[in-house]
Parts: sequence; structure tokens; C-alpha cells
Amino acid sequence: MRILILNGPNLNLLGTREPDTYGAATLSDLEESLRTEFDTHDLSFLQSNTEGVLIDAIQGAAELDGIVFNPGGYTHTSVALRDAVAGVPVPVVEVHISNVAAREPFRHTSLIAPVCIGHVAGFGLSGYRLAVLALEHHAERKRGAGSA
Amino acid sequence: MRILILNGPNLNLLGTREPDTYGAATLSDLEESLRTEFDTHDLSFLQSNTEGVLIDAIQGAAELDGIVFNPGGYTHTSVALRDAVAGVPVPVVEVHISNVAAREPFRHTSLIAPVCIGHVAGFGLSGYRLAVLALEHHAERKRGAGSA
Amino acid sequence: MRILILNGPNLNLLGTREPDTYGAATLSDLEESLRTEFDTHDLSFLQSNTEGVLIDAIQGAAELDGIVFNPGGYTHTSVALRDAVAGVPVPVVEVHISNVAAREPFRHTSLIAPVCIGHVAGFGLSGYRLAVLALEHHAERKRGAGSA
Amino acid sequence: MRILILNGPNLNLLGTREPDTYGAATLSDLEESLRTEFDTHDLSFLQSNTEGVLIDAIQGAAELDGIVFNPGGYTHTSVALRDAVAGVPVPVVEVHISNVAAREPFRHTSLIAPVCIGHVAGFGLSGYRLAVLALEHHAERKRGAGSA
Amino acid sequence: MRILILNGPNLNLLGTREPDTYGAATLSDLEESLRTEFDTHDLSFLQSNTEGVLIDAIQGAAELDGIVFNPGGYTHTSVALRDAVAGVPVPVVEVHISNVAAREPFRHTSLIAPVCIGHVAGFGLSGYRLAVLALEHHAERKRGAGSA
Amino acid sequence: MRILILNGPNLNLLGTREPDTYGAATLSDLEESLRTEFDTHDLSFLQSNTEGVLIDAIQGAAELDGIVFNPGGYTHTSVALRDAVAGVPVPVVEVHISNVAAREPFRHTSLIAPVCIGHVAGFGLSGYRLAVLALEHHAERKRGAGSA
Amino acid sequence: MRILILNGPNLNLLGTREPDTYGAATLSDLEESLRTEFDTHDLSFLQSNTEGVLIDAIQGAAELDGIVFNPGGYTHTSVALRDAVAGVPVPVVEVHISNVAAREPFRHTSLIAPVCIGHVAGFGLSGYRLAVLALEHHAERKRGAGSA
Amino acid sequence: MRILILNGPNLNLLGTREPDTYGAATLSDLEESLRTEFDTHDLSFLQSNTEGVLIDAIQGAAELDGIVFNPGGYTHTSVALRDAVAGVPVPVVEVHISNVAAREPFRHTSLIAPVCIGHVAGFGLSGYRLAVLALEHHAERKRGAGSA
Amino acid sequence: MRILILNGPNLNLLGTREPDTYGAATLSDLEESLRTEFDTHDLSFLQSNTEGVLIDAIQGAAELDGIVFNPGGYTHTSVALRDAVAGVPVPVVEVHISNVAAREPFRHTSLIAPVCIGHVAGFGLSGYRLAVLALEHHAERKRGAGSA
Amino acid sequence: MRILILNGPNLNLLGTREPDTYGAATLSDLEESLRTEFDTHDLSFLQSNTEGVLIDAIQGAAELDGIVFNPGGYTHTSVALRDAVAGVPVPVVEVHISNVAAREPFRHTSLIAPVCIGHVAGFGLSGYRLAVLALEHHAERKRGAGSA
Amino acid sequence: MRILILNGPNLNLLGTREPDTYGAATLSDLEESLRTEFDTHDLSFLQSNTEGVLIDAIQGAAELDGIVFNPGGYTHTSVALRDAVAGVPVPVVEVHISNVAAREPFRHTSLIAPVCIGHVAGFGLSGYRLAVLALEHHAERKRGAGSA
Amino acid sequence: MRILILNGPNLNLLGTREPDTYGAATLSDLEESLRTEFDTHDLSFLQSNTEGVLIDAIQGAAELDGIVFNPGGYTHTSVALRDAVAGVPVPVVEVHISNVAAREPFRHTSLIAPVCIGHVAGFGLSGYRLAVLALEHHAERKRGAGSA
Repeated sequence: MRILILNGPNLNLLGTREPDTYGAATLSDLEESLRTEFDTHDLSFLQSNTEGVLIDAIQGAAELDGIVFNPGGYTHTSVALRDAVAGVPVPVVEVHISNVAAREPFRHTSLIAPVCIGHVAGFGLSGYRLAVLALEHHAERKRGAGSA
Repeated sequence: MRILILNGPNLNLLGTREPDTYGAATLSDLEESLRTEFDTHDLSFLQSNTEGVLIDAIQGAAELDGIVFNPGGYTHTSVALRDAVAGVPVPVVEVHISNVAAREPFRHTSLIAPVCIGHVAGFGLSGYRLAVLALEHHAERKRGAGSA
Repeated sequence: MRILILNGPNLNLLGTREPDTYGAATLSDLEESLRTEFDTHDLSFLQSNTEGVLIDAIQGAAELDGIVFNPGGYTHTSVALRDAVAGVPVPVVEVHISNVAAREPFRHTSLIAPVCIGHVAGFGLSGYRLAVLALEHHAERKRGAGSA
Repeated sequence: MRILILNGPNLNLLGTREPDTYGAATLSDLEESLRTEFDTHDLSFLQSNTEGVLIDAIQGAAELDGIVFNPGGYTHTSVALRDAVAGVPVPVVEVHISNVAAREPFRHTSLIAPVCIGHVAGFGLSGYRLAVLALEHHAERKRGAGSA
Repeated sequence: MRILILNGPNLNLLGTREPDTYGAATLSDLEESLRTEFDTHDLSFLQSNTEGVLIDAIQGAAELDGIVFNPGGYTHTSVALRDAVAGVPVPVVEVHISNVAAREPFRHTSLIAPVCIGHVAGFGLSGYRLAVLALEHHAERKRGAGSA
Repeated sequence: MRILILNGPNLNLLGTREPDTYGAATLSDLEESLRTEFDTHDLSFLQSNTEGVLIDAIQGAAELDGIVFNPGGYTHTSVALRDAVAGVPVPVVEVHISNVAAREPFRHTSLIAPVCIGHVAGFGLSGYRLAVLALEHHAERKRGAGSA
Repeated sequence: MRILILNGPNLNLLGTREPDTYGAATLSDLEESLRTEFDTHDLSFLQSNTEGVLIDAIQGAAELDGIVFNPGGYTHTSVALRDAVAGVPVPVVEVHISNVAAREPFRHTSLIAPVCIGHVAGFGLSGYRLAVLALEHHAERKRGAGSA
Repeated sequence: MRILILNGPNLNLLGTREPDTYGAATLSDLEESLRTEFDTHDLSFLQSNTEGVLIDAIQGAAELDGIVFNPGGYTHTSVALRDAVAGVPVPVVEVHISNVAAREPFRHTSLIAPVCIGHVAGFGLSGYRLAVLALEHHAERKRGAGSA
Repeated sequence: MRILILNGPNLNLLGTREPDTYGAATLSDLEESLRTEFDTHDLSFLQSNTEGVLIDAIQGAAELDGIVFNPGGYTHTSVALRDAVAGVPVPVVEVHISNVAAREPFRHTSLIAPVCIGHVAGFGLSGYRLAVLALEHHAERKRGAGSA
Repeated sequence: MRILILNGPNLNLLGTREPDTYGAATLSDLEESLRTEFDTHDLSFLQSNTEGVLIDAIQGAAELDGIVFNPGGYTHTSVALRDAVAGVPVPVVEVHISNVAAREPFRHTSLIAPVCIGHVAGFGLSGYRLAVLALEHHAERKRGAGSA
Repeated sequence: MRILILNGPNLNLLGTREPDTYGAATLSDLEESLRTEFDTHDLSFLQSNTEGVLIDAIQGAAELDGIVFNPGGYTHTSVALRDAVAGVPVPVVEVHISNVAAREPFRHTSLIAPVCIGHVAGFGLSGYRLAVLALEHHAERKRGAGSA
Repeated sequence: MRILILNGPNLNLLGTREPDTYGAATLSDLEESLRTEFDTHDLSFLQSNTEGVLIDAIQGAAELDGIVFNPGGYTHTSVALRDAVAGVPVPVVEVHISNVAAREPFRHTSLIAPVCIGHVAGFGLSGYRLAVLALEHHAERKRGAGSA
């Protein structure tokens, strides 16, 4: 499977930013760990702080088999990212490192989750791994439906 | 690991109720599939339509290593279930079969998720499997912290 | 027609509770009066104060020809009962003895009415009779559609 | 009993307007069917798209034994119609053809229902019949109270 | 001064409608009493239950020296009447017979008052008299400003 | 009649504060003008910027025949003043110099008006005169009711 | 094309009412100008201040090829007009002379626009011309779809 | 006096659940301490996690002299419990161990308190003792009124 | 114990103001009754209608062992009183004579309760007695903790 | 006239994204069609997914005669784009391809429309043409005003 | 420059109240420090817990060159103080010691800031110094404008 | 001290954009004036219209001694910028040129201020100078705490 691991604003700070909340591992650690576990998949990685660059990336991944997307702070404010996800046929899974439901009220709603296939939150970096597994499962189900 | 798979109201209808939304597999299928995959764990299963029975079950599982909890319609209305989860030391993962963020507005907020360690939604029955994996990971992290 | 007359919390107090609002007739009076008028139907009666028991009853009536349901105080708070009604194919009519629209604001909205075929309120115990008539009419319309 | 069947805006379109929602029968069909079933009552019929004409009609029916009123789109916006209903001693039953609780949020509240004796919704044109039955029952109860 | 006394929906019921709230005097009593007290003014009177007729009346009074306007139930819902008042140069005083601030919440705001010169509420029919006095005073002030 | 003319915060600035909104006349001008017009009444005057002093004044006027009260900025925020007005038997009329309905939204609601007999707004200082007339009329009505 | 140009409350005041906001041209100027530009179309014109008359007009235009509708103040308050537009098959374009988005908050939402094919606001009387062009384009697209 | 001490969901965890918030004493300690202090009263004790069981208990206590009720998490969500309390003549006092006003916003309002005679919160287990005293005082006042 | 019994606006009217709601006893009766029951405590009493005087009193009582505080109408509006209570180390108990939860919605929330140790409402003047008992208990608990 | 046709996020997907909603024509088709119809104007075209690039473009077009702007998903969330439009003297027309009023509630309000001269929505790509016509008309009116 | 340093409720507690939030310096320290730094200005100081005294002080400072105002808890609740600031020509700067934006939601809005020239928050007592500097700068700008 | 002066969207228009609100000085004037006054500090300057570039800049300034940040229109909408500020250890001061509290309601709240040390608004460009002074003071306090 060709999968894009897409990270939004401030996730480049992973490992240094509020380690109590986000842990000590960095984005490179995440990349290495996912490449090791899912070595039969074709994984690509992108992080950007700019909303437009993230939209470009989603549009550019329209032909892939899945996107694992942590939209960071744009989760709660970006209709444009929602439209990008809705505008491409690729299945998208929303991931959050922290348990956003337990933080400030403005983090409790996501503009993007309704157009994803599902979402995972609160499990630290292992959430990305669960998201890839969810995409695998989603692909199986679709193949099953297709062959039926 | 000793894990309780706890299902709330109407989930006994799985396989017959709105199969477009919830799929054709039943709760027994779920149990069988989880027992097969996680045969080294000690899994128990409970489903009830009654809020109080679910509270009793959570209190009774206080000594276990984890609860995978799909609170169904009580997700959005039950302070009592929230208090039960908050009142026991066992880690709880909230699971939803459908992508609740894409449904009616009253399904967008969870009273229970803030006191869980995390939540998973939208991946059909495979969400329960991801939740068990998340509990495994959570236990590893805690063991790591403990031995440090 | 097989019809379940299902009454929710506190309706066992009928005849003694706030008679100015709810009248002096009891639930037994209601049963007797409905059995007399609709003696060609197969009527069953259930009252419970417990949300989960009501959910069980709705699920258990899935094969019947209709449910007349007064959800009492659960009308305004129970997503789980709504899901139960939505999860069974039997047509459900919501009934209220008092004119809920003229009472406290929290009684003005029903979580359950949107998944019923219709609702009746304000006519005292005669509302149950109107609900049975509505189920009769609903069955006729469906038969008409079926034979066309 | 002298009863006014009063229909508000757009109900003259019955039979042609959104037949999926409102059915194929026309206002004339309704009139004929009610006159047949309730041939011992003195029924009058009025439909108007103008709020003021409906207010006039309610005031003019102050001496009747009942009004069956479908206020259409004015249900949710007209304080003036509410005041008219509250200002006359005749009992009024609010009727809706469709299950308004299952439609757009602005159709979920009625300004008029609180000053009616009750309301019926979701049963198609048979709702008017149920409303007449409710008025009959209301009159009986009042006679009972009067003779006591 | 040429002044229009304009009454909105249901005010033709004065004297018969809810006399506890509105008193026993009728619109004719009001007219007679105002004509007697203000016999040097040129008073005209209009009551209508129809929003459009009230708009027509306001437009037709554009050249008068004042309007005393009780918009009844349209007070709280009619942008169109607000636009009519704002669209003519004649000063308008809003009058309410009852103390609307002490009634249902939806009666606490007026769409029309912001485009009037002022408003009077709670003094029964004597409120109309106070409104005429207010128009007299307003005219004096304007004359004073003009001659300065 | 013994009447207290009670003015709240910042009304001592009348004549100097925002004359476009409030006019050039001072509180002394108001007192003189009211004493001249109503020379058969026993008028007293008080202005204070302190909420507690206004409460004391209302309590102290419990035996009078009326209070004309401009609560200024406390209109929208003072439950304590509302309780004071509700706690004394004397009839109170709320007055505002400007048309508060046409100003900032927080000026559109009054905590005090619901416990007054009525209110007058928008007519400049002549509003106080109208309020005294309203109190006269109120007294007449009560005498009429008493002698009947 | 047969097109109805339908104007709601207070638009008969065009040219005299708040010319800074609405310009100096009258409804007659508008009619003349549209007849000149679109002389191959069959244009009819109606203005009314009464909601019910506007509903009648929409129902009466059900067979036409389009309606250009400026609902004036009813835009924000009339469910009945919305139902009328939704109840007829003719395409409707909502027009506003002023830029309603830049005015009072209650003018920012339209109950009617969701059931129109589109809306135009802010361009003065030329908005009506744009609306006719939009109806022309809409007809072309439909013809295109039909012949395809 | 015959008094029911009724505890809702999760209060069986007292002494083990969040001892910082709820203290180290258990429900048994509470029972013992109350029986000791009020040995001349006939006290009964019930705790349940199930809403319906609590409703049953309240109905069953209709003949007692008082209920001390800690509804736990149902305080904020249960119309059915409110209806039960309103439906029986026995005076009820609502108690909370913690100072609910200082916790999450959804704990700041009680659906049940309005139909109790009063409420006590924030004083730990001694709140139950104060509630019994309040019931004693309430009984005295009623006896006083009765003998007057 | 040195305890201040502090009463806010309009509580000096006790015994005369709305006796149906507040009873016939006066503030002097309250003082006498409390001095009798708690004759081993050093009780002081203050009532003021002025917010600032109440703030001064709270600051002046910083060294006492407790304050029983009925903030009257300031309960719902005074951030300044809240800050005063939060700014002194003395424990404060909020008391209300009536069951504020059963009155107007604006009386349902307290700005001050969150910074008190607890609150009591609905028990008439006996609420003050319960509050003193609560302060006694609070002191015992603290002594217990201190000596442990 | 020099006019910038500015398109925001995801509009580069035109023709491929949700063709049911947005049609099959691409941005190039739009450009060609507009250049053909308005060949006497100097049209420039820009599309970007990045908010800041759109702001730069608006600032860079300050000297032009008009901007036709489809802000896409930024319509509902971008104060920064609003400030850009408000900060330049060039007239801007907001365009939407779909009838945004008929879609999700968060698409019903525009932060940008209040600082545009007007807006057009629902007419597919022909909306851009109408917008250019609106700018032409706007320029004529301003020239007329200038020469007067 | 003649400048009033005006402090509202509870600021007399500075140095003793919640030193973590407000620091250890007292109001006297503040006065001494400001007199030292701004020894060429004529500074006066006032603190009061009473809203009305603060209003009096603002009115009494109408002729000064500036007011530095920390309204404490009245910031969020006092329309009367807002009216006082708006009613005098002297420029006012609002100061808060703590970063109010990071505290409880009810502290996030100020009724007074909109009628000040600006506001400063979060810098401890040095905020007062910055406010004086802001008033100096404001005076320079006005002198510059005056001499131009 | 090394300080970044960071300006958000549209602030490059300073001097040309709405000079009544923002003044005639440009960003270069600001830079020159700050460099002159604070010539012993190491000041850097950046302005960008792109949210992501501003986030990059904040992350890049993590080692500096302070940031003076005017987020422009992103103040009210950007969770991502808030997260960036919260994610770096450098103290940040929010500055606004105009008195945002006196403008449109959506400008009254800041998502960013809660994670800054404080904020300054309304003093034109001199606000930047005050912000640097506040950073100086903040550094002193921290040094003081460090050496203590």
C-alpha cells in the first residue's frame, strides 16, 4: 500500500514541545518506527506548518491508498482542509497524539473528522501505527466488497 | 492481560440493526474474532442495555488491565458512566463502530472520552481490535516507566 | 394487529401522581379501556422505570405490528432509546398525556420522536387510543402500497 | 359539534407539492373524507396563505366547539396566531401532516402548540381525523366535569 | 397634529380577550377617549390582523405628524414592519398595553422599537394617551430646533 | 401623591455627558420642570451612583404612592435592585432618556422592568413627566377598583 | 422565457426610502429597464407587502420558467414563503439590492435562499438583471442536460 | 421520623474513589454514623447505580417523612428522577459530598433540585447529617402550621 | 469560634418582604435565635445593601473562623464579591433562604459558590443554623488533619 | 477594466472534485470562457491553496478595477482575508459556485462578504461572469457619480 | 500631567491576596514606585471596593489628563462604570495585573475596555507604569495634532 | 536582549491601509524608531501574511529572549499559532495597534493571548515600544527570581 503520513503545524517540534503531553520521541523516531513495522508498504512522510502546503499534499496524494493525517491546530478551524479531504478519493484517518477530548473545549470538535473514514486519539505516537492498521483493514474490506 | 470488552445499549442488535451503518457481523462474531487474535489475553465480554449494569461492570473490572468500552447511546448523555470510569484505576478505551463525527450533532461530543486514555471511531468492528492493541501499548509504556 | 403499549418511568403512578396534570385514571384503567375498544387486536402492556428494560422491550417487539410508546422523562434525554426505536422495523408512535409543549422548556424537544412515525400529545389517556388508530391507519396505507 | 378545519399556507398545494412528503390526496379529498366520517358534526373548512386571514378565521370561530388547525409554516414564526388562539375560548388542536420532529431544526418548535389543547403529527391526512376524535373526547370530558 | 393610531393583530379583541391582562375597555372606548382628550388633533384609527395591511398603513401615513403603533404579536417577529417604519419619515411610538417585559421571553425583544423614537409599555390603554403626549413633545422639540 | 424621582449612576452628569444622546438640560432643570407641572404632588428627588444607596432609597419609599426610576447602567446588571423593587409595595415606573432598544445589545434587556408596572424610553426628559402621568392613572384605576 | 419579477414588502418605496442605501430609481424604472433589456422574454411584475399575496404569486407562477424574488424583510422570518418556493418546480433566484451581509446580524441568514437555485446581493437594481441572466443560464444548462 | 438515605451511581465506591475529592469514609461508615446520631429516627439506606431502581425507591418511600438524596451523576441528566421526586408527597433534600459548583460546568445545574425542598453541597459526608436536620426542621414547621 | 453572619441586599426586609417566599421572621429574630443556639461561639452580624461594604466586611473578617454569607441578589452578578471571598483565608458558606434552583433561571448559577467551601439553600432561616454547623464540622476536620 | 479572477483553496480541483456539486468544467475552461466573453477587459487569473498567498494577491491588486474572489473554505474562517479586502480600495465581488446557503450550517456565514460590494452564489461557473458584469455596472455608477 | 491611578475592588489586598497570582508588592509600594519614576507628573491615587465611589472618582477626574484604571472584578459586570468612563472626556487606560485572557472565561470580556483608549494586561504592577507611558504618548499625539 | 518583532497579515499595509484606524507610519518607521530607542538590544523584524511562515518564525525564535507579536487577523482564528507560542519557551507579548475591544465582536477574543505573558492594545505603534519594555521588565523579574 502507498500511504502518506501527513503532519500539520507544530508537529515538527515533537520531542521538544511539552514532552509531558507529547512524549520524548521525535518525528524521525516516528518515521523510523513506522518504516520498520510496515516495511512492505510504501510510506511517504510530510510535515508542514502551512495550511496551503497541507492542502497541496492531500491533493497530490489523491491516487495513493491512504493518508494518515494529524492536522494539529488546523483540526478545529480549517474548512479548506476539510474540503481538500472531501475532494479526493483516497481514504483518510485522522490521528491525534493527545486525548483531545480531555483538553480545552475548542479542541473537542473536528471539522475534518466527518470527511475521514475514522479517527484515533490519545495513544501517543502509537496512534499512527493504529491508523495504518485501520487503513489496511479498510482496504481489505473494500477488496472483499469488490470481489463479492 | 485481563481485558473486559464492554458494549452498551443496542449493540446486541449488531448484524441486524441498520447493517449499512453497522455491518453484518454480530457480537458473537466479534467475540470469536477477538478471542482468536488475542488468545494469550484473558478476555471477558459483557453487553447490557441498562446504564446501571454497565456501571456495575466497570466497577467490577477495577482490577483488570484494561476495558474496551463502546457506550453506545450513553456516550453522549451519561455523567454516571463518566464518573464510573473516572472512579476506577483501570485504563479504558472508548470505541465506536461508526464515524460518529459524521452523524447527528448530538453524537459529536462524548461525556466519557475525557476520562478514557483515548478513543477510536469509524473503523467498524476492527476498532475493537485497535483498542486492544492500544491497551497493550499503554501497558508497555507504563511498564517502561515503572522499570526506569 | 399485535401492538405493545409501552410506558416509561413514573407512569405506574398514574391516578395518584399530580392528578391535575395526569387525571385520576390508572394504568389498569387504561389497559382495560384499550382492551375493550380494540378487542380484535392482540395488545400487550409493559411499564418500567428502567431505561434498559424499555430498550429490551422495544427490541423484543421488533416483530410486532406497532408500539405505542410513552417514554416519560426519558423522552428528552435518552439517545439509547432513540437508537432502540431506530434499530427495529416496527412502527412506533410517541404519546404524551399532558401537552408537553406548554410545560418546562426541557420538555419541548424529543430525542425519540424523529425516529417514530408520528406523535400525539395533550389529550390525556385518550392519546393512547388515538395512537392505536394511527397505527391501524399506518398498516392500511402500507398494505395499500404493498398491493398496488 | 361545530368544528372548523383550518389550513395555513401552502396546504392548498396538497396532492401536487412534494408528494413524497405530503401524499397524493388533495384538500378536497380531505374535506370529502372528513364530511363522510363525521356526518353528524357541522364541519366548516378554510385554507389561506395569509396570516391575517387565519387570525380572522380563528376569531370568527370563537363560538364553535373546536378548531383543527394546521398552521403550516406559520407554526414556527407566528406570535400573532398564538395570540389569536389564546384569545378565544374554543379548544384548538394543532395538526401536522409530516413528522415535523424529523425535519429541519426550525420545524421542531411550535409557537402555537403551547396554547392548544394538544397536537398530532406525522400521520398524513389521517391526523385531521384523529384531531376531530380528540375534540370529541375533550367535549365529553368537559360535559362530564360539568354534570358532576 | 395629524396622528394615526395603528393597532395590530388581535387588538380588535380588546375587552373580550383575556380581560385580566388587557382590561375590559374596547378599541371603540379607546378611540372615543382619545378623540375627547385630543380634540384639537386630527386622529385616525386603524386595526388589522394582516402584516401587509399594517405596512400599507404605515407607508400611507408617511406625511402625517406621528403614528402610535401597537404591533401586537408582530412586534417580535416582523422585519418587514421594521423596514416600513424605518422607510418613512414620520415619528412612530411603540405602545404595549401589558408589561411585555414580565411575560414570555420571546416578548422581551422588539424588532420595531429600535426604529421608533421610543416606546411605552404596561400602562393599559392609558399608554396610547402617553404616546400621543410623547409625539406632541417630540414635535415641540423639533420646532424648537428648527427655529433656533 | 407622594412620588420619588430616583436617578441612578451617571445621571448627575445630565447636560454635560454626551449631549447629543442625553440633551442639554440638567437634573436641576428636570426637578424644576416637574415641580412646576405637578405642583399638587409631593415630589422628592434622589440621584446616586451607588447601587446600595439606590436600594436603600427604594426601601425607604415603600410607603409612597409611586417611584419614577431611571436605573441607568444598573438596569441591565442588578438583580439586587430588582429584588428591592419586588420587595416593596409601591408601584415603580422605569424610565430611560434614550431609546435603549436602539443602542448596544446589552442595553436591550432590563432586569428591573419585569417587576415594575411599566416602562417608558426614548422621549428625553419628558419621559419622567409621562411616568408621573402613568402613576396618576395607575392610582385612579386602583381607587376605581377599590370603590367598586 | 416567462419570468416573474416578484418584490416583497416595502420595495414599493424604492426611490423614496433611504436613497443612500437603495438608490433613487423606482420600481417603475426597474420594470422599464428590464423590459427594454430583455424584450424577447415575457416578464411579469408584482409587488406586495402581504406575505400571503406573495405565496399566492409564487404558487401562481409554478408553470413559468423562472422567478426573480426579492423577499425584503420576509427573507429572514418566513418559513411559509420558503415552503411556497420549495413547493413549486419553477427555479427561483433570490435578489437583494443592498449587501445584506454588511447590515444587522438578523439580515445575515435567509430562510428562503436554501430552496432557491442561487442568490445575488449588493449590486443595487442591477442585481435583478444579473438574476435574469442567471435564469437564462440555468435554462440553457437544463436544456443541455435534457438533450444529452 | 422515617427517613430514606438514598445514594445514586458510584457512591458505593466511597472511600476508594478519588479520596482527595470524596474522603476516606465509606457508605457503611456513613450509615453507622447517622444511625448513632439519629437513633430516635427510623433510617433506611439504599444505594444503586441504576436510574430505574432509584425511581422505584423514591416511589416506594412516598409514605415516609423524608428522603435524603444524593443522585450522583444523574443529578444533571435525569428528567425521570425529577418526575419521580415531583410525583411523591414526601419532602426530599438533595445532597452532594463535593462542592459541585466548583467542578465542571455540566455539574453546575441540577434537574432535581427544583423539585426538592432544598439542597446542601460541599461539606463531605457531614452534608447528609445537615440534610436530616433540615428534614427535622421542615417537619416542625409543617406541624407548627398544622396546629396554628 | 468567631463567625460573621453576613447578609446582602434586601435581607433587611426579612419579615416584611414577600413573606410567602421568605417567611415572617426578621433579621433580629435570626440573630437572637442563632445567639441562643450557639452561645459558646463569638457571632457577629452585618447586613448591607452595598456591594463594596460587603467586600469590606469579608476582608475585615479574614482572621475569623468562618463566614456565613447570604449574598442576595449579588450572588449571580458579582465577580468582585467572588474575588473578595477567594482573597481571604477564612472558610465561607453560602446560604439562601429560598430554593433558588426553583426560581428564575438567572438565580440558578452563583459566581460566589465556587470559592466557598459549600452552600445550603431552601430551608428558610434554619439554613443559617446548618451553615454554622457546617463551619463547626469544617473546623474539626482541619484540626484533625493538623493534629494527625 | 483590469480585473483579477482570484480562486481560493481546492478550486484547482474543479472538474474532478465532486462533479455533482461543482460541474465538469475546469479552471482553464473558466479562464478561456471569461477571456472570450470579456475580451476588451484585462483579466488576470490566480489560484492558491495558501491563505497568505491570497492575501498577497489582494494587496497586489490594490490598483486594479476589480477582483472577482471565490475564497473557498476560507470564506467562513479567515479574518485575515477580510482585513486584506477591507485594506485595499479595489471593489471585490464574492462568488460561490454552489448554493452555500443550502449546505452545512458553517457555510452559511461569510466573514468576507461584509467588506465586498456584493456576492453571487449558486449559479455554477456562470457566477464568475455575473460577477464581472457586476463590476462593470459598479464602475459605471461610480463614473456617473464622479461626473455629476 | 495630572493623572489618577484608580484601583477597584480587592486591590487593597495586594501583597497579601493570592501572591502567586498578584505578587508580593502592596498598593503603597506601587504608589511609591510610580511617584519616583514619574516625579514630574501630578499623580493621585484612589482605591475603593464600592462601584459608586469609583464612578464618583471618574466623574471627579473629568478635568485631568488621564486615568489609569484597574476595575478589578467590576471589569466584567459594570455597565455603570462603562457609562462613567464614556461620559467624561479624560483618556482612560484599563490595566490588569494578571493575564486575564488565561483565567476563567467570565474574565475574558471587558465592558469597560471598549470606551478606554487601550488596555494592558499580564505584566504585574509594571502594567501601571506602561499605562502612564501610554497616556504620555497619547498626550503627545494629541498635542501634535493640535499644533498641526 | 534578542527580541523578534513579528507582524502578521496585512500589517505590511501600515501607513496606507485605513490610516484613520492605523495611522500614517509604516512598518519601516516602526523598525527605525524601535532600533533607535532600544539600540542596546538585538532586534529582528519579520512580517508575513502566511500563517505557516509565522509559525516557522516563532519556532525559529525559541532561543531568543522575547517576541513582540501582532498576529493581525489570525489572533481570533488560529489554534496553530497558539500551539506554536505554547510550544516554545520564549516569552511572547501580544500587541494590537487599534483598540480591538471597541471593534467587531469577533475581534474581542484572542486564541493566542492566553499563552502569552500579557497583551497591549489600542496605543497605535507605541504599543510595540510598551511591549519591549514589558519584556525587559519580565527578564528582570526572572533574573531576580533566579538570583534569589
